Amino acid sequence: MKLRSLAVAVAMSGAVSGLMLVSSVDNTAQAQETFEWKMVTSWPKNFPGVGQGPERLANLVEEMSDGRLTIEVFGAGQLVPGFEVFDAVSEGTAELGHSASYYWKGKAPAAQFFAAVPFGMNAQEMNAWLHYGGGLELWNELYDEFGVDVLVAGASGVQMGGWYNKEINSVDDLDGLKMRMPGLGGEVMDRMGVAIVNMPGGEIFTSLQSGAIDATEWIGPYNDLAFGLHQAADYYYYPGWHEPTVMFEAIINEEAYASLPADLQAILRVAVRDINADVLDEYTARNNDALETLVNEHGVELRRLPDDVLAQAKEHSADVVAELAESSDMAQKIYDSYQAFQEKVVDYHAISEQAYYNARNPEGDTSAE
Amino acid sequence: MKLRSLAVAVAMSGAVSGLMLVSSVDNTAQAQETFEWKMVTSWPKNFPGVGQGPERLANLVEEMSDGRLTIEVFGAGQLVPGFEVFDAVSEGTAELGHSASYYWKGKAPAAQFFAAVPFGMNAQEMNAWLHYGGGLELWNELYDEFGVDVLVAGASGVQMGGWYNKEINSVDDLDGLKMRMPGLGGEVMDRMGVAIVNMPGGEIFTSLQSGAIDATEWIGPYNDLAFGLHQAADYYYYPGWHEPTVMFEAIINEEAYASLPADLQAILRVAVRDINADVLDEYTARNNDALETLVNEHGVELRRLPDDVLAQAKEHSADVVAELAESSDMAQKIYDSYQAFQEKVVDYHAISEQAYYNARNPEGDTSAE
Repeated sequence: MKLRSLAVAVAMSGAVSGLMLVSSVDNTAQAQETFEWKMVTSWPKNFPGVGQGPERLANLVEEMSDGRLTIEVFGAGQLVPGFEVFDAVSEGTAELGHSASYYWKGKAPAAQFFAAVPFGMNAQEMNAWLHYGGGLELWNELYDEFGVDVLVAGASGVQMGGWYNKEINSVDDLDGLKMRMPGLGGEVMDRMGVAIVNMPGGEIFTSLQSGAIDATEWIGPYNDLAFGLHQAADYYYYPGWHEPTVMFEAIINEEAYASLPADLQAILRVAVRDINADVLDEYTARNNDALETLVNEHGVELRRLPDDVLAQAKEHSADVVAELAESSDMAQKIYDSYQAFQEKVVDYHAISEQAYYNARNPEGDTSAE
Repeated sequence: MKLRSLAVAVAMSGAVSGLMLVSSVDNTAQAQETFEWKMVTSWPKNFPGVGQGPERLANLVEEMSDGRLTIEVFGAGQLVPGFEVFDAVSEGTAELGHSASYYWKGKAPAAQFFAAVPFGMNAQEMNAWLHYGGGLELWNELYDEFGVDVLVAGASGVQMGGWYNKEINSVDDLDGLKMRMPGLGGEVMDRMGVAIVNMPGGEIFTSLQSGAIDATEWIGPYNDLAFGLHQAADYYYYPGWHEPTVMFEAIINEEAYASLPADLQAILRVAVRDINADVLDEYTARNNDALETLVNEHGVELRRLPDDVLAQAKEHSADVVAELAESSDMAQKIYDSYQAFQEKVVDYHAISEQAYYNARNPEGDTSAE
């Protein structure tokens, strides 16, 4: 059963009161039925920002359901490794998962469209596409064969471009660098002469400090400061063209979802919508302070990526994304929807959000150089 | 009782399971207790965008509570006039209201900080300040004497600068124009030689068409198209410096809230958080299409406000907002919090959202001129 289509059906058919009448007949029986669920995540337990979302979800659901649905949250590696979250939910080892869809590109390359697209849509735009532009329906269609439903469950906002142990003054300076950058962004960097090295988040700091890599991207000031990346590299580049946001996902085992009464299904859906907003709010608020600490207390050198790097990255990004679209009919269908929505929202945001940012702060960044 | 502090207390004290144990004792009794609430709004019933939020809230709460809490939504004038929503909730005529806080500036001038501040924070930034920067606590403190709790319940995104029946090429062209622009933005325009005329939304079209006013702002393409404003004026200006978003509010009678069991209180709070995000998602998605229709089908002349208009508006805005801060100790306290948060988030967004918009679309708007 697709969550989105269920939600749409309930909202649009006027069937709500009918449903309520039917289910209120056995209200007492329902009130006694309790559900104890497990939620596996791809993050360390209680990780700042993204790791707080699942904890908040569990609290909200318990409170709203008066304890009828409880969720135990597991950090990466506590029940299953971080990169096995999808399988665990698909197989029913856990009823719920919190992760990012680009980790599943081995199973479904098109999943990357829902996490982060280089030079693609930012958090506000992705939320509009997913909830009002057909994106979430396509995402559920993609996961259907795995027995998994999906809801949007958090955003990072525009990320940083990465940490480098030397100054980048033109695209030539990238040549031969060893860098950790996952996903589509990594493919773009590879075409610009960078040797891409993949590793889990936990290994980044040591690899950067030892010189095993020369550069890395991670998330943004709040998480990067917590990782201590400023102790291993001096130059902090922006903007994060490769990840204009990451959208996080809540994945739900379809059978487990179907076993819930309608009120608990609604409670779960709405709680996920809460954390979807809450994670971005936390990042937006905390990144401010963290950036100030990095620059003022730790002497980090904040730099804008040079124009030729951004221009070449944009060209290669268009190629990489178009090639992904050609990987399957479903990928093409998602790409077409994504692309059509992006074209319009870029036009509209040119005269609203973008024009406003530039009118409010015509100088742009005044902290660098 | 303050909603935010309650939510924080529950989330942080680990008291959730304790609460659950206590309340599950009389679970059956609770399941039989039902609440029928009224929600008054400042919008026409089922108005596109902002008017959909309250309807969605009512549906979600009914579904999540299995019918134990039902909410009847009234459009402006159906139970009380749109500008009497606050009084109605304060006095308990209705348990809930949906509106925008700048309408209550006669009661509490500082309420304007929570709706829209010229050259202030946009939707993403306001949500971060309200939920993670202390803003929502201050808002509740401001409303406390009225027996009203408040939650954030929607955002418009950056609005448009307004409709004009002549071209504006410099600040001199504003002199003597009669314009409908409410709130702090109107005060700014007044200082730039514009005669400000106040009127409810329903009178705008006729006044503009008859020449009683020469210009007006309303919301954005989605709502403006629905109002038919393109039939009464040719020039559509951006960006909406006066309203970088409006944040809508859900106001709740404190006694009514206290009468709900803890699970229904949580359901209500989380449903409001859902519509807070959902209204912005709808505007972001629908404004795209509406703008295209206005420009391509109705021949609307899209123009950027001239640099000198934006620069002077920015200067006067700083004065107007600082004068508002001086109106009371509470206004000063809110201003200090708002201002400190904005300074940091403007710095951070200069290197993230703003830098990204400009890297993705260096040309900015290509539809005008």
